[in-house]
Parts: sequence; structure tokens; C-alpha cells
Amino acid sequence: MENFFYRQPVPIDFGFGKISRLPEILEQMNLTRGLLISAPSMVRRGIAQNIITQSRGRLIGIFSEIQPNPTVLNTDACAAKLRALHCTFAVALGGGSVMDCAKAACFIAGTTFSSADYLSGERKIDHAGIPLLAVPTTSGTASEVTAASVLTDTKRGIKALLSSDFFYPAYALVDPELTLTCPPQVTAASGFDVLAHSLEAYYGKKHQPLTDLAAERAALLVFNYLRTVYYEPDNAEARAKMSEASVTAGMAFGMTQTAAAHACSYPLTQDFGIPHGEACALTLSAFWRLNSSEGPEAERLQAFSRRLGFKDSDALADRIDQMKKEMRMHTRLEEAGIHLADLDELVDHSFAPNMKNNPVTITKTLLKRIYQSLA
Amino acid sequence: MENFFYRQPVPIDFGFGKISRLPEILEQMNLTRGLLISAPSMVRRGIAQNIITQSRGRLIGIFSEIQPNPTVLNTDACAAKLRALHCTFAVALGGGSVMDCAKAACFIAGTTFSSADYLSGERKIDHAGIPLLAVPTTSGTASEVTAASVLTDTKRGIKALLSSDFFYPAYALVDPELTLTCPPQVTAASGFDVLAHSLEAYYGKKHQPLTDLAAERAALLVFNYLRTVYYEPDNAEARAKMSEASVTAGMAFGMTQTAAAHACSYPLTQDFGIPHGEACALTLSAFWRLNSSEGPEAERLQAFSRRLGFKDSDALADRIDQMKKEMRMHTRLEEAGIHLADLDELVDHSFAPNMKNNPVTITKTLLKRIYQSLA
Repeated sequence: MENFFYRQPVPIDFGFGKISRLPEILEQMNLTRGLLISAPSMVRRGIAQNIITQSRGRLIGIFSEIQPNPTVLNTDACAAKLRALHCTFAVALGGGSVMDCAKAACFIAGTTFSSADYLSGERKIDHAGIPLLAVPTTSGTASEVTAASVLTDTKRGIKALLSSDFFYPAYALVDPELTLTCPPQVTAASGFDVLAHSLEAYYGKKHQPLTDLAAERAALLVFNYLRTVYYEPDNAEARAKMSEASVTAGMAFGMTQTAAAHACSYPLTQDFGIPHGEACALTLSAFWRLNSSEGPEAERLQAFSRRLGFKDSDALADRIDQMKKEMRMHTRLEEAGIHLADLDELVDHSFAPNMKNNPVTITKTLLKRIYQSLA
Repeated sequence: MENFFYRQPVPIDFGFGKISRLPEILEQMNLTRGLLISAPSMVRRGIAQNIITQSRGRLIGIFSEIQPNPTVLNTDACAAKLRALHCTFAVALGGGSVMDCAKAACFIAGTTFSSADYLSGERKIDHAGIPLLAVPTTSGTASEVTAASVLTDTKRGIKALLSSDFFYPAYALVDPELTLTCPPQVTAASGFDVLAHSLEAYYGKKHQPLTDLAAERAALLVFNYLRTVYYEPDNAEARAKMSEASVTAGMAFGMTQTAAAHACSYPLTQDFGIPHGEACALTLSAFWRLNSSEGPEAERLQAFSRRLGFKDSDALADRIDQMKKEMRMHTRLEEAGIHLADLDELVDHSFAPNMKNNPVTITKTLLKRIYQSLA
């Protein structure tokens, strides 16, 4: 008998051009003194300043010193700025890195500690930080509806998930218009991240009826619209569908967490510099084939593939491979500068806790075989 | 381009036998002084007392003077008890009536007013009441995940929806085991209520991608399992599926609200004593046929019907009619003691605000024709 626990407390305000409603939303929420946390590119392009101006004094500053795969130094600096300006809320405008930094900073601002102390597990997140409104500019991480933040502590060599029920944003403002300027390679990588969230939520050990529903819908949307947004970046309808896919996938993997493809992506990004979505894509079809051919979920994945219009699970995996090739994602480790001599270390670094969520148990031997097949 | 706003902040803890975890949940939530709000039948059968005993002092009293279609007198009496015992939370164990009463009482307890003042619109609900944990004992209303309470003020002759974002329960504990003892007629009527929630959420004017997803899933579950729970009340798996259907439908209509079949159900219940779910069922297939044959949603409903395995929308409506007959629900107004001479008044009383959510505009003339076809 099915037992499950489901929650997704973030209100989702979705619509093309909805960013213009931000001042009104801040007013309704009675938020008066906030920091805009964003990416350097948003500052360069004047979008950040525009939003500050439109906020009519409710946003009083900006922080944008955030690197891709943000570090605890980024979050601590952001927290310091929140403190210095006496902010009572923040708006995060950006992709996953900005969101991840903002979530941690909103909490850290109210403490006397460093994010590093929480990332290492020395301290526990035991209360809410100041509220965060999350405004994604890519269709990928779905960080706007999840309670997780992925941070890196370069000094201690840790890249890990910092997660807490207190990390849920207070509001997700999802405006697909903001993704229109996303370049094709980022669009593609982010899209594969959404697909990985969907498929891993579906076959992950913690899958449950409500996440299955969201995961299947999100995967369908990616298969139907990712190519369109890659080839036609200005296609507003397709952009909206990809934004919908991203947030819908977030409603799934926010509860189930991710699995093997994401676990493998961490060293692929950290040690070999492959962007997150592309790193997930690299092993995604291989794990889909594996989980479709053996283990407790094989039959479910075959049925899922057929409902999505594929002949079988292999055909779905073939489509992933074909899309990767088309969108100039790495399809082989070699292309990404990863050689056979690197595989043992790569295997060793691939066992983040989410590896355990895969329905087929992944041993080091099995994983090395999978990497070899992609060499 | 699709715009939508979606939220469903209630954590859903779902599982067979999960009621035994209540003491642990109260402990985790740090709730120490609560009232159990329940139905007289739960008290008679000793279930209420059991739960109080197991709570190890965290539940300190019980209130069960709640009539079906609860009145403002019920909610005010319940609020008075919460106040008298200095309760800081409540647990609602029951069907829709218990939930509706509890939601209002948890708020009213912290005021010096009567529920009637809020139901009439004289006063606005502008803050949260004490937290409510909702434990449904039927698979029907999904009140455990919605922000609405339907109350009656007999003195002023009002039956209306009292709804507020502050009415969301703090926790939904959904234990299908509690529905095992639900008698077949209540099971059937509640099941048709779930179906009405699903179909009305799907075709209602406020439908949106995330509610469509939940609505379709819930409808599929009802078609697959309602007959089973009617004929085999002890079938645990089918009971669990109907509980899942109910809560999933709640995730849909909680945002979209209901539509014409629910609007018609109010006078059918209030003036003619037809139980809520059965009253919804009475017109449900007629509105499904109407909305499938004309208006903006016709094509979508045909596609929905086919995805659910029906030849077309008519076949889906036929199945509803057949299920009603099989489960001894009224299929004609005549059987419910409603005669042609009553129709004008019935029409007049059928225009609650949710009538406006129907995709085909319902005029008095059209509604009379629909009632005549069911006479």
C-alpha cells in the first residue's frame, strides 16, 4: 500500500510579463526594504536596475557577486550586504546559482555564522530566514519551488546540498519572458536539467503518486518543446511551456530528490567543468536504459515511455541521445576531455547521497562500466 | 498564453494506518493543548476517545455537536469550547461537516464575534486562527487541503462559502483505513462528490495546467475504483485509491473552485434534503454533456474523455449515469421528491457564484431545460 508525504508550500505566480507585477506583489505582502540578488549579466543588461526602479523604493540595493556553482564566500558576502542594509526580504532574479546563493544568504543574514558551518553539518538550520521571492531567468533548476541550495566550500573541498523546510521561497514569480534572451546552449543544458529532474523523480526510490503525475507531465513538455526553444529562442509559447515544465518538475523532484544522473553530474561539473545541465544529460539516457531493463521500476518506465508516445524505453533514451547530439551537448566523455585514465577517480567522486535513490543499486563496478560505455 | 496562480500549502501525510502517527506529529509540531473536533458517530464508536488517549495529554477535550451541513451555531459553540479550554490547536476528525465547522471555529475562537458576521460578509478574515490538523474519514470533500468552509446561517437563510487563505489546515493526515467503515451509500455519494470536483475543476473557467493534471488523475481514479469500494467496502487498496482521488481532486478544485453541478447541489440539499455528493451527481452528467457539446471547452472535454478510455464525452457521461443507477443514487428529480411545479424555485436558488465558473453560460431558461430533462 502506498504511503507518501507531499508538500510544496510555495505559491506559484506564472505568466508571460508577470515580472511587471512585482511591485504590486511586494505591496500586497507588505515588504518594504529588500535586496535584489541577481547575476552580473542582469546588472550589465540593465534589467536589475529596471526592477529596482519599478519597485518604488521597496528594493534598496543589489548584490550580484555570485559565481556559477556559488561558494560559501558568495553567500556570506550576500548575507553581509543584507545585514548592512537592514533588509527584511530579498528578491532573487536569476538561474540556479543566484537562487542557491539567495536561499542560504536570507538565512545566514540572521545568524552570526558562516554558510560553511551549515554546509559542513556543524550547525543545523532551525528557524526561518527573511522571506525570499524567487524569480527564475532560466527554465532549469526549479530552485524557486524547492527547499534546496547547492553550495561549494572550496577551502574544504565540499560541494553539497544545503536543504531545509525553512529554505522554501515565500513566493515564486515565474515569467517565461525572462528566459527569451537565454542563449541556445544555456537553454539546452537547462532543458536537459529539467528532463533529468523529471525522469529521476519518476524512477527515484522516493517517487509517489503526486510526484509521478508532475514528473510525467514535465517530461512530456520537455520532449514537446525543448527543440523548439533551442531552434526558435523567441518562440514565446514554447518558452512558456519550458518554464511550466521546469516548475512542474520542481514539484516532483522537490519531494523525491534526484538520483544517479545528478550524482554523477557533480564531479563532471566540479572536476571537469561541464555545465550542470549538460553534466546531467551525459549519463541520463544510460541510467534510463539501465532502470528500464532491470530492477523494480523497469515495467513502470516502459509504460511511462509508451504513454509519452515512444515505442518503448529504449526509444525514449534514443530520443535523449539524438537531442543531445542535435543541441551540441557532449555525448561522449572523450569530447569533454575525460579519458579512460580519469574514470576511477570519476567513479569515486560520483557517490553523492542521491546515488542511493536510483532504483537499481549502483556499485562502483557497474558505474565504471556505464562510464566506459560513454567513453 | 497561459497565466496562472497556484498554491496548495497543506502538507499531505498519506498512508494506511497513519492515524497512529498523530501523537508523534503533534510532538514534532510542538502542539500541546488541543481539542478534538469530530462527529457524534466517532464518539459513539469509541474512535474519538482512543485518539485522545493515544495523544498522551496533547488532546484535552472533544467537541462533536456538529450537524450535517454545519451551522454558525455549531461553529460558534465549537469556538467557545476552544476558548474555554484555552486550546492552542485543534484536530478535525470527520467528513466535510466536521472540517467545515473546525476551520471556522479555529479562527472564530480568537475573535469576539460570531461566524455569522463573517459568513454575511460584514467582517473579513484578516489573520490566522489556531492551527488545525485535518483527518478526513470520508473520501469526498477534500476539505483537508482546501481553504474553504461551507456554513449555513439558518436564521438569515444563508448557505455560503466562507473562504480565506488563513483557513488552510496546518497539516492533512489522510488515512484511508478510517474510510473502511464508511457505509456504501455515503461512500457512493462522497465518491460522486470527488468526481464532481474533478470534472468541474477540469472544465471550470479557472482551470490551469497544474489543476488540469490533478483533476484528470482524480477522475481516472474514481472511474477505476469507486465501484470497487461500493461493492467491497473492505478493499483496502481501492479505499486508498479513493482517498488519493479525493485529496488529488482537492489540489485541483481548491484553486479552480467548483462550477454548475455544485451550484445546483446547494438548493437540492438545502430545500430537498439530498445529501451533498448525491446532489452534485444529479446534474453532473448533464453539465458534462452540455460543456462537451458546446462552448469553449467542448474539444478539451472530448480529448479528456478519450484519454480516460471512453469513446467520447457522451460515453463518459453514460458511465456516470450508469454508476449512479448501480449505486442507487437518484437519477431523476422525481425520485428525490422534486416535481415540475418546484422547478422555477429550484432554478432561482441554483445561482450561487460558482455557477459563473461553468464554461457554457447558464441562463435560467437553459437551467430549467436541464432540470426538465432530469424531471
